[in-house]
Amino acid sequence: MDSFSATAARMPDLRQATIDHPERFRVLTGERPTGRLHLGHYFGTIRERVRLQAHGVETFVVLADYQVITDRDSAGNLRENVHGAVLDYLAAGLDPRSTTIFTHSAVPALHQLLLPFLSLVTESELHRNPTVKAELAASGRALSGLLLTYPVHQAADILFCKGNLVPVGKDNLPHVEVTRTIARRFNERYGRVFPEPQALLSDAPELPGLDGRKMSKSYGNAIALGMTADETAAAINRARTDSERAITYDPDDRPGVSALLETAAVVLGRSPQSIADELGAAGAGALKRLAIEAVNEFLADHRSRLAALTVRDAQEVLRVGHERARDIATATLREVRTAMGMDYTSV
Amino acid sequence: MDSFSATAARMPDLRQATIDHPERFRVLTGERPTGRLHLGHYFGTIRERVRLQAHGVETFVVLADYQVITDRDSAGNLRENVHGAVLDYLAAGLDPRSTTIFTHSAVPALHQLLLPFLSLVTESELHRNPTVKAELAASGRALSGLLLTYPVHQAADILFCKGNLVPVGKDNLPHVEVTRTIARRFNERYGRVFPEPQALLSDAPELPGLDGRKMSKSYGNAIALGMTADETAAAINRARTDSERAITYDPDDRPGVSALLETAAVVLGRSPQSIADELGAAGAGALKRLAIEAVNEFLADHRSRLAALTVRDAQEVLRVGHERARDIATATLREVRTAMGMDYTSV
Repeated sequence: MDSFSATAARMPDLRQATIDHPERFRVLTGERPTGRLHLGHYFGTIRERVRLQAHGVETFVVLADYQVITDRDSAGNLRENVHGAVLDYLAAGLDPRSTTIFTHSAVPALHQLLLPFLSLVTESELHRNPTVKAELAASGRALSGLLLTYPVHQAADILFCKGNLVPVGKDNLPHVEVTRTIARRFNERYGRVFPEPQALLSDAPELPGLDGRKMSKSYGNAIALGMTADETAAAINRARTDSERAITYDPDDRPGVSALLETAAVVLGRSPQSIADELGAAGAGALKRLAIEAVNEFLADHRSRLAALTVRDAQEVLRVGHERARDIATATLREVRTAMGMDYTSV
Repeated sequence: MDSFSATAARMPDLRQATIDHPERFRVLTGERPTGRLHLGHYFGTIRERVRLQAHGVETFVVLADYQVITDRDSAGNLRENVHGAVLDYLAAGLDPRSTTIFTHSAVPALHQLLLPFLSLVTESELHRNPTVKAELAASGRALSGLLLTYPVHQAADILFCKGNLVPVGKDNLPHVEVTRTIARRFNERYGRVFPEPQALLSDAPELPGLDGRKMSKSYGNAIALGMTADETAAAINRARTDSERAITYDPDDRPGVSALLETAAVVLGRSPQSIADELGAAGAGALKRLAIEAVNEFLADHRSRLAALTVRDAQEVLRVGHERARDIATATLREVRTAMGMDYTSV
């Protein structure tokens, strides 16, 4: 059994443990604020966070603003993206009283962990990381120091709050492995400070974009949670299908039709196949109408909650989250300094 | 003219400018606290800092505690080394009212600069750095993430306080070049925040250890500033010379004799050759007596000042230096965040 299968096999027990003993877990999760959050984020991660919160598992959500520039030259409109993400979190049901939402850049002490952590991994270990390799290839750029050391920043994100559970897709398992390695080596060298976090593998299949490719703002194939009903309809109507009347679920040969089936299926809680069967020979127009109605109905509550929120709400959530994250980072850093013999001014 | 010669050619004018216009400069310099400071530190850097301070140039001295673990597994007795260095600085004439002495680990906001800075250099640029290559070879270990990114940490050290003048030996010129590159790229991308610092090349010849090799605590060939007169005598008496009566200055063929001549010469402000000429055929015993007397006389004042200082003095100097360095780092980081569009909680 390979490492992925072994991890996957542990998931049912681990999921049950989060329900039976929520107090044993602290979750670190997050996003890079590169654009508006979309349906892929919702079904990939946000829904899981709301579920964990409902079970009473303490969760930290980082908006990893510095990581935006790992693979691009411009940070983009960070302020708008960060505020937008916070408001989508609130609309989706994250409660800032129990879930700490913060940005990277507001927690200096978190980043100081990079220094001891970088000393605990070799350059060749960093190079071997398959996720970094894939992201490097996707970026089409020279490998920056920031992308090379990206898994170490993720270790700092997870360990600054002593997170011991990290919801990830299969692609991000290697990052959690790096974090475990760093925690173990730190503890061996300086005495136990950090937990060795476990990955909580997502059981949600990845939702494709409207063109069948990976859903991504940069492909223009995403349905943002905050779109209006009309914008949603326009995006779905623009989606490329084919002229065959019979609707069949066939992601390889009919990516456009299949992506619409998957989109409708995920919001309806059904299978793509059952929707295809229902539509029969109704054609792509009927499929689009069904998808538009299903998505708009699913997102209606989210959007009405969103409409009631303002940028000031986002700022207040961040103010509270930053304060809490800073307090925790400062406390962890104090432990690290003591473990490493760096407490110089105490008497 | 190569880059080194070009830099060297600018030094007389630059030195004069520090005298004529001290207010135009802010110096960042420092040490890794790996052991007690020795004569090599004194003549290599500390004397220059005292000179700059006397001219009214504002100076920041970092005790780079995190950089101790770039090339070794154990941080060693950091507390003792840091306190010892601070007390040696005070005894040598650094005035904590005008010179800010601080440790890396006490200034979290400084390290946050690593994230934008790492995004501005490629992995191959990091790899090409000749100083990192040399330090890697000397360490005899696998390249750690910390050593690979070491020049970027130095850039953060220099730029957090907007240092624009960095006293270095020839070996460290490449680090200053990396800092200049990072400052330039940051300013181009996000708007001007940082100066492009200049190197102030040391004009002091490097003092060898008592065995003629590089002076280093790990070789046991160093005269620590804080040794007693007896310890100094013992260290010099242990130095290996040869049986030839005639004392000649010949570093290649007579490294031991020549190192003693250089040691005596530097503390007496004379040339090694003139001391060799004076000793003639007096033999190594006479040379050792002369060196012991010269070093002990030179260090007598330093040592009596040191004897009057306590660990509490060092702690107080650090407390003040940490506060000042933190204030400056926080202000710089605020500018960086604003330049990058990361000000989320302001209204």
